[in-house]
Order: sequence, then C-alpha cells, then structure tokens
Amino acid sequence: MNILLLEHEQINNSLATVSGEKAWHISNILKLKVGDSLRVGIINGKIGKGEILNIEEDEVKLLIQCDTLPPDAIDITIILAMPRPKALRRILKTIASLGIKQIYLINCFKVEKSYWQTPLLSDTNVRQAFIQGLEQSKDSIMPQINIRKLFKPFIEDELPLISNNKLKVLAHPEGGVLCPANISQPMILAFGPEGGFTKFEVSQFINEDFKQIQLGERILNIETAIPFTIGKLSRF
Amino acid sequence: MNILLLEHEQINNSLATVSGEKAWHISNILKLKVGDSLRVGIINGKIGKGEILNIEEDEVKLLIQCDTLPPDAIDITIILAMPRPKALRRILKTIASLGIKQIYLINCFKVEKSYWQTPLLSDTNVRQAFIQGLEQSKDSIMPQINIRKLFKPFIEDELPLISNNKLKVLAHPEGGVLCPANISQPMILAFGPEGGFTKFEVSQFINEDFKQIQLGERILNIETAIPFTIGKLSRF
Repeated sequence: MNILLLEHEQINNSLATVSGEKAWHISNILKLKVGDSLRVGIINGKIGKGEILNIEEDEVKLLIQCDTLPPDAIDITIILAMPRPKALRRILKTIASLGIKQIYLINCFKVEKSYWQTPLLSDTNVRQAFIQGLEQSKDSIMPQINIRKLFKPFIEDELPLISNNKLKVLAHPEGGVLCPANISQPMILAFGPEGGFTKFEVSQFINEDFKQIQLGERILNIETAIPFTIGKLSRF
Repeated sequence: MNILLLEHEQINNSLATVSGEKAWHISNILKLKVGDSLRVGIINGKIGKGEILNIEEDEVKLLIQCDTLPPDAIDITIILAMPRPKALRRILKTIASLGIKQIYLINCFKVEKSYWQTPLLSDTNVRQAFIQGLEQSKDSIMPQINIRKLFKPFIEDELPLISNNKLKVLAHPEGGVLCPANISQPMILAFGPEGGFTKFEVSQFINEDFKQIQLGERILNIETAIPFTIGKLSRF
C-alpha cells in the first residue's frame, strides 16, 4: 500500500477515521505512531498526506491535507473477455494500478457461462480490487467497469461509439502485425478469452476498424499480456 | 497449456509416455482422443506435435515428431530482489513465459530473511514454475536461475562480468529517466524488493554503469512491473 485511500464518509472536515483491517495495517505492518505521516488520497479526489493524531488497534485518526492532483489517467480503454474468476480479482487490480479508467468486461463464445456467476463481480468486490490497485500505484481515481453479457449488441451498437477517434487495437495471438510501440493517441484495446476470440468474433472487431496485433511467437496469459501490451503501446 | 513439454526420460525413440496430472489434463480438460494431436516439445530441445496412440485415465502414449526450433530467447537477463514467497511462483512462471533465460535472484537490505526459507525455492518447485511458464508460451528452453544470498560479492565480483556489453537498466521508482522503448541490444535489468533498493544499493548499481529508469508516476507491483518493463524495453 503506497497510499491510503479514504471514502468521503470517513472524512469530517480535515479529520479522517480509519478502522478495521486498514487500521491494523497502519499500526502493525507500517508500524506508524502518533505524529507520523503517510500518503493519503480521497477516492475520486485529490491526494496528499495524513498525520496520525491517535492510534488504537482498530481505529486510527488522521489529520489530512489533500491538495495534489493524482497522476494523469492513461487514455486506454480495455475490452476484456470475462476471464476465469480465479484470475479476475488480480486482473482488475492490475488494470487499476496501470492507470486505466474504462473497462468493458464482455461475453463471447469461449467464455464459460459459469464465470458470470462469480461473487467477485459484485460491486463491493470489484471496488475492493480497484482500491487495492490504486493504493499500489498512488492513484485515487476509480476505474469504471461496464459488464456486457451480450456480445452482439456490444459489438454492433456500443463499440462504434466508444471506439470513435481512438486507435483500435485487437490483441490476438494468430495473425496480425507486431504490436506498435510508444503511441501517444487515445486507444481502445481488446483482449480475448483463453483460447482466443473465434474467427467470427475477430472479423467483427476488424469490421469496426480494429487493427490486429500480436506479441511475438509466445502466447502470454492474460495477466501477463495486459501489462506487457500496455507497456509496449503506451507512451506512459 | 499451449504445448506439452516432455522430459528426455519420458521418451523412447519417438514414443512418449505421459502420466499423472498431465495425462488427466489431456483426457479431461483438453478432452483429446486416440488419433488426436497436440503441440509437444522436448525440454531444452525442439518442438513439434504428438499424436495420441493410447489414452487412459492416468497414462497417455504419444507418437511424437519434434523438428522445429522453439521461439528465440529474449536477450534480457533479470536481476530480481527475492520477492515475497506468495508471489514467487507466479513471478518465475511469468518470467519463463516472457522468454527470459537468465535470472539472478538476489538478497538485499529490504528482503526479509525468512523469505529464503521458502520451499518454493527448491529445484523441483522452481523447475515446475518454469515449465508452467514455458507450456503457456509454447517454448521449450528452460531458464537458468542463480540464487545469490550475499549482495556485496554479487555486485562487486559477479555483476561486472554478467553485465559486460549489455545495456544496464535499474528499474527504481524514485528518480531516473523514463524507461526507453524498443531496444534491440542485449540488456540486463534489475528490480528491487517491495520498498525498493536502499540509496546505497542504488549507488552500487550506478557505479556499475546501470542507468536508472522509472515507469511514470505510478508504482507498479513487481508482478506487473516485470511484463510492463519488458514490453516497453524489448523489440520483441
């Protein structure tokens, strides 16, 4: 945790109250004491620092001063075929930590129906994964997740709107050109499921002017492919 | 699993015998039958395909033909401060899947002593993590891991030799220049522990002509930072 994020409800004027696991983390892992400071941020607000006024096992009181803007967002929208639930939380955390703010989680042919039943998709769990990612990367702006369980209306009706004026990139292991580097324009970047998008699904993206790229001879798993591709594509 | 890797001992002329978990995977996950083929490779050898001759719950017999070279290695040596054991297996798997063949796992000030006790560092467990990474990325060449529990002799005696004629890069969140992109020369790339290298340790790398780079305003965790940095630096 490189920044402690606070909900608006935790703050009263410049006083913040932290309880539960995070209070425990502050006293037992960070081993902070009264008078010490740590980096804090207000969710969807500014960042700054908090001075510890009082510390107990299950509650910490902080005097906060937040007047710095968080890091600039990366202007990349991610379209992601719903992954295996086991990996979902880590992927959402990774995406948040990379500074991405728009995610479309979509259905497609090779996504197993049962994946959509996972409790990890609840608002609370998604929010928690995002907060963990932001607290890793010293950011305070929550990503937005858009869950689309129907492929066809997503591709036909929504994709043209959300991809307008963006560089459209489809990461797909077979075919395509090598991934370009160091792009500064806004991008929208689609990743398929394990086993990939079907030929028909690929053609749907191509119809929408997506450019098919690949990452070399190796097939990376989605948890590796996302940071690898963002690292290559993004100017930063 | 995008390729099935075989040990030399599993092969007799062109006949390979697969048992245990992998046999189970072939019949129950891949749902293959007699006559079906799958991509196979010989560890530290060539890759090709295997045709299923016989399949039982706990043993599969394959007729293999391996005459293709595996993908080219990425000419990047990774120096990695020993991470939290919880993350170690995944990190080794990721590094293997990226095509990296030389890893130095080193000690430094902020590595907790207890980390070195983990059973995940046993030859068997490291090998298993590497094989998982290679089977993800369709590669057959095992990475080499070098465990260095003493920082000073590593930096002073060994580092000058292993970094000779390479672009030397130290990924460190504070200071440094923005990570360059699309480099084609051989590289050696060092990552610190959670909390980073100490100032003294950073200066030791700088003394050895390492160039300090950072990844923007965000601090990425090591599991994200490795593929992100490799994606940015590597030509492929």
